[in-house]
Amino acid sequence: MPLLVVGSVALDSVETPSETREDVLGGSAVYFSYAASFFTSVRLAGVVGDDWPAAHTELLASRGIDTAGLQVVPGAKTFRWRGRYFQNMNQRETLDVQLNVMGQLEPVLPDHYRRCPFLFLANGSTGLQLKMLQQCPGAALTVADTMDLWIRTESKGLSELLKRIDGLVLNDSEAKLLSGDENLVRAGRRIREMGPKFVAIKKGEHGAMFFSQYETYVLPAYPTPNVVDPTGAGDAFAGGMMGYLAEQGNFDPRTLKEAMAYGTLTASFAVEDFSLDGLQRISREDIDRRMQEYKQMLSF
Amino acid sequence: MPLLVVGSVALDSVETPSETREDVLGGSAVYFSYAASFFTSVRLAGVVGDDWPAAHTELLASRGIDTAGLQVVPGAKTFRWRGRYFQNMNQRETLDVQLNVMGQLEPVLPDHYRRCPFLFLANGSTGLQLKMLQQCPGAALTVADTMDLWIRTESKGLSELLKRIDGLVLNDSEAKLLSGDENLVRAGRRIREMGPKFVAIKKGEHGAMFFSQYETYVLPAYPTPNVVDPTGAGDAFAGGMMGYLAEQGNFDPRTLKEAMAYGTLTASFAVEDFSLDGLQRISREDIDRRMQEYKQMLSF
Repeated sequence: MPLLVVGSVALDSVETPSETREDVLGGSAVYFSYAASFFTSVRLAGVVGDDWPAAHTELLASRGIDTAGLQVVPGAKTFRWRGRYFQNMNQRETLDVQLNVMGQLEPVLPDHYRRCPFLFLANGSTGLQLKMLQQCPGAALTVADTMDLWIRTESKGLSELLKRIDGLVLNDSEAKLLSGDENLVRAGRRIREMGPKFVAIKKGEHGAMFFSQYETYVLPAYPTPNVVDPTGAGDAFAGGMMGYLAEQGNFDPRTLKEAMAYGTLTASFAVEDFSLDGLQRISREDIDRRMQEYKQMLSF
Repeated sequence: MPLLVVGSVALDSVETPSETREDVLGGSAVYFSYAASFFTSVRLAGVVGDDWPAAHTELLASRGIDTAGLQVVPGAKTFRWRGRYFQNMNQRETLDVQLNVMGQLEPVLPDHYRRCPFLFLANGSTGLQLKMLQQCPGAALTVADTMDLWIRTESKGLSELLKRIDGLVLNDSEAKLLSGDENLVRAGRRIREMGPKFVAIKKGEHGAMFFSQYETYVLPAYPTPNVVDPTGAGDAFAGGMMGYLAEQGNFDPRTLKEAMAYGTLTASFAVEDFSLDGLQRISREDIDRRMQEYKQMLSF
């Protein structure tokens, strides 16, 4: 089934201890849609400026991603983010953010986007996420991401959003902030009580946790020795997860757990190079091969 | 098969955000032997002073732990450690260490201890670990723990030890320090190349990683919402792991992976209360019940 994602589309500059890349393709909706494209047909909504290279749109289209909802705004500039990773590659600092067109215009959803049965609200202001959600009243499964900025500044809107979505995906520090609890097991359960039917907490190199009314579990990350650039790993996780759910066309507990594993593995490829390079090198077969290895790793 | 552990026997004072306990039963060999006692017969070697409550020895003996090698030294004082946990319960600071008798006398191994087929060198100086190893030349499986202090101050002895043991168990920050690599997958592989046939890296709430010539894997921690006191969790992990190996009487790859899982679960009970209280409440059946739940969690 088709999957709609609304989120940031960006040009990232990334500094790691060994290498720096300037103005590479990035943004939450970009990582998400590329990752999801291994599993299902994806519709991408976002806004960019006229500094946006057409080659980036072509790359996404080459994966079958529908870019009808990617608006190029004349005279505007694309959202830019610059960050630096520390030696351990798990911590980073944001050096510069230029919202540009992202702060000025909202995505407009084409008609066929609004009828999409699977919806993912990637990182963006909570207000925008609520508006997008209202435009897709018939979605069978709606899942959102959030981040510390919105938890701090839009708590009222976020509280409303949490009551209206099916699932929330967020990282460990955001889960602690949102719940006010340092224990992630309690944090996940508390956030689920705020509304969503399920919560997925991303722990980076330590894997991901899942919470629903029925179960709590944790899956480890795939142990890759080759972490080049963790940017977008969380979005690639969400893309692999939602892509698999949309492919399967359901979200029962068993399918959700498989989706968590697919998200984990898709993210493991994403961190093995800068930008989308790690994902561009692979096919669905590579993901499925790693899945066999992963299942073997967890069976005893 | 019987399992010998040599290590610290202590009186700990533990401060957590919610509660403080003074002079409770602790030490690496104590946590280890109690955890291992669910699986096999354990022989404990260590030294204490005459301030050591006889009730502590009786508690260990009540689990079938052989305390013939636990020497009570008249006129000496028992090793004491005081630590404080931060709000997240994963970080702690050491407030006070009094080596006392630990810094003055070495354990003397009774004859039947020296013929033990399974040997664990719990935390202690590398020099002492080497001496104990020499006294047990016939051990079928020898595994050691180490810590930052010995990595920094006894690197030559540690290098020799690593060539003579079968397995090394250490925590994530120690693995990074010993290998000089911030990526734990690469760190584990490098340490294995220093000598031991296998390496287990403990990641606290994030589980444990395993490295041998044949495989690399990671198992998550059991997601307990109830973390009261993490002191001794790493030793309880090693105790559950080595105890299971000794019970099974072998250490093939399959048994090692089961042992890693048993270590993980034994540690999960240990952190649910102060001192040995969490382990005192349970039986082998509770561990096996949690194992079924854990296997279910990891299967999809």
